Amino acid sequence: MTSSAVPKIVSNAGSTGSTEAIALEICDSPHVINAEKIQQVQQELLSPEKAQRMAEFFALMADANRLRLLSLLARQEWCVGDLAGAIGLSESAVSHQLKTLRSLRLVRYRKQGRHVFYQLQDHHVLSLYQAVAEHLDENEE
Amino acid sequence: MTSSAVPKIVSNAGSTGSTEAIALEICDSPHVINAEKIQQVQQELLSPEKAQRMAEFFALMADANRLRLLSLLARQEWCVGDLAGAIGLSESAVSHQLKTLRSLRLVRYRKQGRHVFYQLQDHHVLSLYQAVAEHLDENEE
Repeated sequence: MTSSAVPKIVSNAGSTGSTEAIALEICDSPHVINAEKIQQVQQELLSPEKAQRMAEFFALMADANRLRLLSLLARQEWCVGDLAGAIGLSESAVSHQLKTLRSLRLVRYRKQGRHVFYQLQDHHVLSLYQAVAEHLDENEE
Repeated sequence: MTSSAVPKIVSNAGSTGSTEAIALEICDSPHVINAEKIQQVQQELLSPEKAQRMAEFFALMADANRLRLLSLLARQEWCVGDLAGAIGLSESAVSHQLKTLRSLRLVRYRKQGRHVFYQLQDHHVLSLYQAVAEHLDENEE
C-alpha cells in the first residue's frame, strides 16, 4: 500500500503546545494524502445516515435513570414495581423509561400470568453496557 | 429468594392499551414488592454519580462525525490528513473531534518521526462501537 500523489500542506496553527490539557496532535510535516488508503475504506466507512442513527441511539442512552435500569436488567429479569422500588422512582416513571428502552429494542418483556417481567433484549445490550462501564472504571482518576 | 411483605397496589392508569405503538406493560394485578431482591441489588446498582458519568459519556458519543471517525479507527491507525480526506471534513474539524475522543480516552496517538498516527485506545472502544452497530443492523426494518 504505497502513498500516491496529492501533496498537501498541513496547517500547524492548531498546535498550541503542551500547556493545553489536551493538545491537538497532527503531523509536523507537509502531509501527503494516502489516496489509495482513503479509496480502500470508502465502502467500509460508516455512511452519514447510519452514523446519524447511531448518534441518535447514543443520545437516547445518555440518561442516568435509563442506565441505572439497564444496570439492574443486566443481572436478572425484573417487574416494574421492583425496579421502581430498587431505583427509588415511581412506577410510572420507570414504565416510561422502559417504554423508551423497548423502542430502542434494548429491553423486552414476557408475561407470566398477570405479571410482566422485563429483561435485556440481547447480548449486544449487555456488551454495550459493560464496555462503557469498564471503560469508565479503568479511566477513573 | 421469597418475596417478603410491603404490599403495594399497582396503578394501572398508565396502561393505555394496544392502540399505542408501544404500550406501557406493567403487572395486571396488585404488586407485592420483592424487598429481599431489592435489598440484594443495592450494592450492585449503578450509583447515581456513575450513572451520570456514563450518561455524559453517551452524550459525547452522540455525534455522527465522531462515530464515522471511530468506524475508520476501528480498522487501522490513521493520520489526521487521511482521516480528513476519507470523511470529507477539514483537518481542523477532524483534529477537534479527535481531541474530544482523546479526552474520553477512546483514542490515542503515537508519533513516528514527524508523523502522528491515531488509533483506538483499547478493546472496550471497539466492543462499544461494534455492539451498537450490530444492534442497529439487526433491528433495521
